[in-house]
Amino acid sequence: MNILKNYINGKFVASKSTQFIDIMNPAKDEVIALKPNSTHEEIDETIAMAQAAFPGWRDTPGITRIHPLIKLHQLLIENLDKITEAVVVNHGKEWAAARGEVIRGYQMVEAALSVPEIQKGQFMSNIGTGIDEYSVLEPLGVVLIIVPFNFPAMIPFWFLPFAVATGNTVIIKSNSQTPLPMQLMTEYIDQAGFPKGVINYLHCNAAKGDYLIKHPLIKAVSSVGSTPIASHIYKTASNAGKRAQCHGGANNFLVVTEQANLDSIMPNMMNSCFGNTGQRCLAGSVIMVVGSQEYYVHFKKKFLEATNALKIGYGMDKENAMGPIVSKKALATLLQQIQDGVDEGAELILDGRDLKIEGYPKGYWLGPCVYEKAKPGMKVYDDEIFGPVVCLDRVDTLPEAIEISNAHPMGNAITIYTENGLEAREFRYNSNAGQIGINIGIVAPIAWFPFAGAKDSFFGSLRAQGPEVIKFYTKEVVVIEKFHGTTEIPWD
Amino acid sequence: MNILKNYINGKFVASKSTQFIDIMNPAKDEVIALKPNSTHEEIDETIAMAQAAFPGWRDTPGITRIHPLIKLHQLLIENLDKITEAVVVNHGKEWAAARGEVIRGYQMVEAALSVPEIQKGQFMSNIGTGIDEYSVLEPLGVVLIIVPFNFPAMIPFWFLPFAVATGNTVIIKSNSQTPLPMQLMTEYIDQAGFPKGVINYLHCNAAKGDYLIKHPLIKAVSSVGSTPIASHIYKTASNAGKRAQCHGGANNFLVVTEQANLDSIMPNMMNSCFGNTGQRCLAGSVIMVVGSQEYYVHFKKKFLEATNALKIGYGMDKENAMGPIVSKKALATLLQQIQDGVDEGAELILDGRDLKIEGYPKGYWLGPCVYEKAKPGMKVYDDEIFGPVVCLDRVDTLPEAIEISNAHPMGNAITIYTENGLEAREFRYNSNAGQIGINIGIVAPIAWFPFAGAKDSFFGSLRAQGPEVIKFYTKEVVVIEKFHGTTEIPWD
Amino acid sequence: MNILKNYINGKFVASKSTQFIDIMNPAKDEVIALKPNSTHEEIDETIAMAQAAFPGWRDTPGITRIHPLIKLHQLLIENLDKITEAVVVNHGKEWAAARGEVIRGYQMVEAALSVPEIQKGQFMSNIGTGIDEYSVLEPLGVVLIIVPFNFPAMIPFWFLPFAVATGNTVIIKSNSQTPLPMQLMTEYIDQAGFPKGVINYLHCNAAKGDYLIKHPLIKAVSSVGSTPIASHIYKTASNAGKRAQCHGGANNFLVVTEQANLDSIMPNMMNSCFGNTGQRCLAGSVIMVVGSQEYYVHFKKKFLEATNALKIGYGMDKENAMGPIVSKKALATLLQQIQDGVDEGAELILDGRDLKIEGYPKGYWLGPCVYEKAKPGMKVYDDEIFGPVVCLDRVDTLPEAIEISNAHPMGNAITIYTENGLEAREFRYNSNAGQIGINIGIVAPIAWFPFAGAKDSFFGSLRAQGPEVIKFYTKEVVVIEKFHGTTEIPWD
Amino acid sequence: MNILKNYINGKFVASKSTQFIDIMNPAKDEVIALKPNSTHEEIDETIAMAQAAFPGWRDTPGITRIHPLIKLHQLLIENLDKITEAVVVNHGKEWAAARGEVIRGYQMVEAALSVPEIQKGQFMSNIGTGIDEYSVLEPLGVVLIIVPFNFPAMIPFWFLPFAVATGNTVIIKSNSQTPLPMQLMTEYIDQAGFPKGVINYLHCNAAKGDYLIKHPLIKAVSSVGSTPIASHIYKTASNAGKRAQCHGGANNFLVVTEQANLDSIMPNMMNSCFGNTGQRCLAGSVIMVVGSQEYYVHFKKKFLEATNALKIGYGMDKENAMGPIVSKKALATLLQQIQDGVDEGAELILDGRDLKIEGYPKGYWLGPCVYEKAKPGMKVYDDEIFGPVVCLDRVDTLPEAIEISNAHPMGNAITIYTENGLEAREFRYNSNAGQIGINIGIVAPIAWFPFAGAKDSFFGSLRAQGPEVIKFYTKEVVVIEKFHGTTEIPWD
Repeated sequence: MNILKNYINGKFVASKSTQFIDIMNPAKDEVIALKPNSTHEEIDETIAMAQAAFPGWRDTPGITRIHPLIKLHQLLIENLDKITEAVVVNHGKEWAAARGEVIRGYQMVEAALSVPEIQKGQFMSNIGTGIDEYSVLEPLGVVLIIVPFNFPAMIPFWFLPFAVATGNTVIIKSNSQTPLPMQLMTEYIDQAGFPKGVINYLHCNAAKGDYLIKHPLIKAVSSVGSTPIASHIYKTASNAGKRAQCHGGANNFLVVTEQANLDSIMPNMMNSCFGNTGQRCLAGSVIMVVGSQEYYVHFKKKFLEATNALKIGYGMDKENAMGPIVSKKALATLLQQIQDGVDEGAELILDGRDLKIEGYPKGYWLGPCVYEKAKPGMKVYDDEIFGPVVCLDRVDTLPEAIEISNAHPMGNAITIYTENGLEAREFRYNSNAGQIGINIGIVAPIAWFPFAGAKDSFFGSLRAQGPEVIKFYTKEVVVIEKFHGTTEIPWD
Repeated sequence: MNILKNYINGKFVASKSTQFIDIMNPAKDEVIALKPNSTHEEIDETIAMAQAAFPGWRDTPGITRIHPLIKLHQLLIENLDKITEAVVVNHGKEWAAARGEVIRGYQMVEAALSVPEIQKGQFMSNIGTGIDEYSVLEPLGVVLIIVPFNFPAMIPFWFLPFAVATGNTVIIKSNSQTPLPMQLMTEYIDQAGFPKGVINYLHCNAAKGDYLIKHPLIKAVSSVGSTPIASHIYKTASNAGKRAQCHGGANNFLVVTEQANLDSIMPNMMNSCFGNTGQRCLAGSVIMVVGSQEYYVHFKKKFLEATNALKIGYGMDKENAMGPIVSKKALATLLQQIQDGVDEGAELILDGRDLKIEGYPKGYWLGPCVYEKAKPGMKVYDDEIFGPVVCLDRVDTLPEAIEISNAHPMGNAITIYTENGLEAREFRYNSNAGQIGINIGIVAPIAWFPFAGAKDSFFGSLRAQGPEVIKFYTKEVVVIEKFHGTTEIPWD
Repeated sequence: MNILKNYINGKFVASKSTQFIDIMNPAKDEVIALKPNSTHEEIDETIAMAQAAFPGWRDTPGITRIHPLIKLHQLLIENLDKITEAVVVNHGKEWAAARGEVIRGYQMVEAALSVPEIQKGQFMSNIGTGIDEYSVLEPLGVVLIIVPFNFPAMIPFWFLPFAVATGNTVIIKSNSQTPLPMQLMTEYIDQAGFPKGVINYLHCNAAKGDYLIKHPLIKAVSSVGSTPIASHIYKTASNAGKRAQCHGGANNFLVVTEQANLDSIMPNMMNSCFGNTGQRCLAGSVIMVVGSQEYYVHFKKKFLEATNALKIGYGMDKENAMGPIVSKKALATLLQQIQDGVDEGAELILDGRDLKIEGYPKGYWLGPCVYEKAKPGMKVYDDEIFGPVVCLDRVDTLPEAIEISNAHPMGNAITIYTENGLEAREFRYNSNAGQIGINIGIVAPIAWFPFAGAKDSFFGSLRAQGPEVIKFYTKEVVVIEKFHGTTEIPWD
Repeated sequence: MNILKNYINGKFVASKSTQFIDIMNPAKDEVIALKPNSTHEEIDETIAMAQAAFPGWRDTPGITRIHPLIKLHQLLIENLDKITEAVVVNHGKEWAAARGEVIRGYQMVEAALSVPEIQKGQFMSNIGTGIDEYSVLEPLGVVLIIVPFNFPAMIPFWFLPFAVATGNTVIIKSNSQTPLPMQLMTEYIDQAGFPKGVINYLHCNAAKGDYLIKHPLIKAVSSVGSTPIASHIYKTASNAGKRAQCHGGANNFLVVTEQANLDSIMPNMMNSCFGNTGQRCLAGSVIMVVGSQEYYVHFKKKFLEATNALKIGYGMDKENAMGPIVSKKALATLLQQIQDGVDEGAELILDGRDLKIEGYPKGYWLGPCVYEKAKPGMKVYDDEIFGPVVCLDRVDTLPEAIEISNAHPMGNAITIYTENGLEAREFRYNSNAGQIGINIGIVAPIAWFPFAGAKDSFFGSLRAQGPEVIKFYTKEVVVIEKFHGTTEIPWD
């Protein structure tokens, strides 16, 4: 059996822990690895090694620190198919989604190659006679990255390449369902030439995660998870005096006006609602049609046709557009939530609960589920349902659609489908969300732009990806310098 | 008696509270105003008004929002002497320091005139065929500013002009010792042409401050205070899911090498140690001489001569270089701390405890106090002593001096005095502090640079002043836009 | 008679020249001032004074250099009506246009208040062990600004506030038709507190302009004029080894699709074509209707109705929407160009040539002129006609419209009128112009954005306004610094 | 015989020209290749192909355009030794210098990976009600790069990676002495995956270079050469209406004060004066000792000792620190210039003219030459002597040294050697040069910083390397967009 090793200080080391979690292939209900719950001693040792690596890594010129990243980039591209397979096998998602997330992941490395440029400080000559003032963006020390199950190959890279490029050393705490893709990628990290201890991958449970967060040598915490988890990590880190950026859940609205080009947008809408089996924080949850009842009926027909045409099955069969749910437990939760919706009075016009996939009798299957008559106040409408479940709704006007979306406590992404420039602009200007799509239903900023939600979808001041996360991983130290005796500015 | 009014929604309104705090002139021990502890209803009403003002202020183009700031700038310059007097009378500091802080304050307004430039988002054309991605730096809503007693005219402006220029509305909670300068400046704010409710000034106690911090409509909290207060506010705000930037205390080291030009630096050193009566987070606390015992003795002689030459008295007499302590209670605390130092075994080679100032018999006077033989581990060496108290120490080498300073849990500012470029660079590169001075003992970044400490001197990700605080008061919303049916980037 | 004085070294000085140009009120054909052609000695003296002022102005901290600009901003606002009147009386344009240009002018001052922020250099710590690299954006020295007649109160400010805020000293060469508004504003400059010699206003003819351009102490040249003038200045400056930014002429297309909201856009279109009497480089020259013949006819009817409703007359009568042509000579040129169009075969469907304005019998009047059947290859279609003259054209598809516009040798601005997002994006992406309007017919970037044309509408690398012009007026000097003996980067 | 092929439109093509230039190994006086003078038809064809490639390359998303650059980077690293050898064999320089320049070259590629970040435009939301303004940094089209002989593997990369990363297509005109290293690297470019026609390498003479510069489809010209060549290209390009950046010659001062650490700096000084056989625009030409006559004598002794210890010989022998002069003609010119110095009265205290190198009897050898008593006004002091020739001089004070350096018409680089911070700052602040070194004698900015001289050492507005050259290769197009009928800002 494959017992996962920690990657600490440049070596793969077996944990002494005797506690293990089963790591599954969700399409087959098979145990494919065991993840240990590393001991406190092992955690302390990991932190100590990362701390020991910090001064040397900080001393390495920033223009040199990108060299192993370039090497890593090359290794990730060379092993794209292999990593994609690890994602499919461990998470269950369709091949295209798995491949897309790996690509997104190494795009983050590409974006992190701008760090020497962005990490520049500022220099102001002669702020007073003979006085110069400048700043240095210093790395923080050891930083902690806590990753979720749903994008096991991508989300570590929202943070990792930026954190190390700026001169920090990093500990990634694995998640408890899909640690395998990152385990594989750790091998490429190992080959890429980073000094020992700069990047570490650690297996432990959530309680040990809290221990990590609170450890005095951890200087910053980045996390992605559900809103309760995000809130918990944000509080835990902040109460320990740390800076934190914690990405939470979502309940995203897709707004479709009468000026949308339905044929053009439908593939994107399908992907938004059912790609990754709906297990993403950018998935469409409520489809809000703006217009007449006739238009709504017309839309619904096209939507259901497209939904029914989706091929579902094992992700390794590349023609499939949707795979299983990540775990038996997650499937049970979803089935309960779906039944709750029915019990609350929503009408389940497409019921994916009895899905069987030939050849994979034990897989955690759930087909697309579509409600009508769900309304704000019902759990199925308000809660983050992390699966292929969508509510169809209708309002008369665009401002109503925006108002309903803005009233929701979460605000990760929101999308409008329209060809009309005025509608698009009105929607963009008035919506309160971290990401706004115009005819794009999975509003994932590219690596060069920041990524975070609004309202309860994010806790923190600085976001993932791009220039913002570079700022998160540095502090701007200011130097005021003179070499003579008199000055002009107040107090010097 | 002058009972302070709240400034809410563009009007000066008397509080219905029956609880008042005495506001004193510390040089005279006279009550000069009464500060009310506003009721929860008044606080709710203030927040509601600020929230009501937010949409209109956000809609006001950023290039227009700077207009009342320009007007305010003009009013502050016109009333420079009047505000300076309010600072001296309420806080007690020397005229030059008071005037300097008012100038520093309106320099923040000058720096905030760059907001339209800095608040620009990013635009990337054609991230995929036909797809553009761009971002908007949106204001947050109602933000809270909690200010300390020691720079009553300046510290509100570390935040205020940047917060409003970016489109937020603001509530400033007054401090309980020196609310008068800001009260006066609120009149100029009132005249400057801001829409009603954009800037509000509220009098209440610390418990009500917590109520403010936790209120759901408050989106961000900026504060300055001692480290325990900073830590408390950071936790309170973070536990309520808010972003926060909380500036704490300091214990700053001034390092003097044998290559310093002692005559040239001594005025700066005096100002650093005793200006503002030592009540500033950038004051020098430990003077670390690097060199031989002979050099130390030589330095000590010059230092004590300069200290003994300082004129002390009422700040309104402009020749004075040091005023009283801010309050009777603060003086009592200081006297205890000084005695603790003696009891711990430090040698008080200059004792300012018996100071009398003619004409001001009831003033809270404390003259410069200088220790020798204080060492790390003693409270007088390690704690933030918020007054004119300095420890002299000596080490053989610069790395030792840096090591001792870096080992201290706080890290606001640190300064080296030397003419040698190699020493200066070694010191700059290896010191862990938020502000680093080279021959500058009060390392106050100008308004165009960020301001915050390292280690326990600051809690947060983004600092006061300049481009960083503009980032703190905005969230970068990302828009991905296309108007056609096919795409190339992963997931769209 | 008002004989214009030079403003040199902080003083208004009469020229010794005996050559004068008549400065006219074009609505009345009256001489209102005489402009001298200053001597070479006076020019040399002006440059010498500006050069003498340079070191002290460069030494003035950048955060201090904005103080007189803030004062100037206040004076321009206080005298808005007076400057507006000077524009109307000397140039002839309608009151609203005159007022608008003054506002645009002082917005440039507002934008220049960001200079301390933008003029910051970059700092990279530890590019090799112990080595830092940083840069300083140094001012150039004496710079020359050559201004045209058509926006006498605004165009000097595309350059002036940015040039002085960055630390340069400036000579503005007046134009020979409308020097009066700047003459008036020079008085406010004089009151604003700039050191002597920092800003100078000089009256001379074009030949002396060349002398100025070639003078060794002039370090950079900014100009606005027709394309032949721009080309001449660019060559003259470049051949003397100078950096130059030379804005030329235009022939702007307004593209109207069937998805435009004609009622909504018509006021903007009128202003674009006939505001400022068509004498602006952002004026609409060719209106290209994209669509059916029926739509074209429909559009033409609405366009002519709106045109016929325009009130024309003296600009001081505030209800007028169009004033006279700037000079008798310019009017004669226009009449010839209009006749040429007729002779070439274009159909003049609205002929403004016989316009009489009651009370102003001697004014240089020309009413709106509208052609049909003009085509590329005709002078009236291809040339910059600097007056209220428009050609109506029609094509079947948007790509055709873009192709015709892109084929034109000039490319200042181009506008599409449509509500459709896809059309707008296609147009934006494929058009080759410096400014692109979407439902905006006078595509004047605000002061915080750069302004320049493409193709033959601009010669240079860096544009007017905003961050680009700040770059134009500075050179980024790089410093590499170490204070020890060994290094790691190639060659040090 | 190796007849060089052009690299056009993704293919290596033999020229039809019958004119050839001998390409030599200067250590052996051997012809190693023949460079053709391509015909006008071939040049036209090259430009046409580059133009044809432009639209598709511009359409390629910027985040994709960096992919072949990453591949090229990898190829250059893999072939580092091979390219180094090509540099040594064709140019003659010592191995370490050759290797260093190749590394510098591919560092430019690393810096160009930031282009997607830096090429972002700006976005300002709601500049007026309902109006957004944003900008796009568009590539220019076909750009021309003209390279000199002295850094054949590096200088093309000051421009090339940035030009292509921003979306331009490129023609590099080879130089006539050292075209081989770039010829070799063109093979790697060919393998890296750029679309056909994006990068082209063309062999022709200077007259054909002018033809290229003037061609209407060439949109920008970057060049490096002597000041007369730079001036000629700048004028030629500007007169054709192009933007240009033309790097010229140098005559760099190395200032040594009494506070310098002579032992520490001497290796750097040797490299600065004699590395690359003095054939670089950053070479030290005049060594200005600041201090007493005794100090000067002391310095001179150490300097001559270090100079005499230099090993000279064929660059392929890696222990050598200096190689031959690039060509027989260049050597003849140098010998004349050295004799001129003697004739003018300068004292040649070290004469390298009779150097013989065993085994390389026909090499173009010239040993280090050191003058005393050269003064401003002598050609040997004032002119750029492109070889291992240095003048020693002495002044009493630092301001004198700065004044003499500033008075020189060229201003590429200037260096101070001192450990004193005040001297370093005074020197930095007052020197007029493009690059300033503090204890660094070859002030070559790293790829992330701009590179250009001041005064006659550079013609243009925007420099090589880093963010500036990215600006050079783009134009910032401004878009103003609204989708409704009313507005608030002047003119819309």
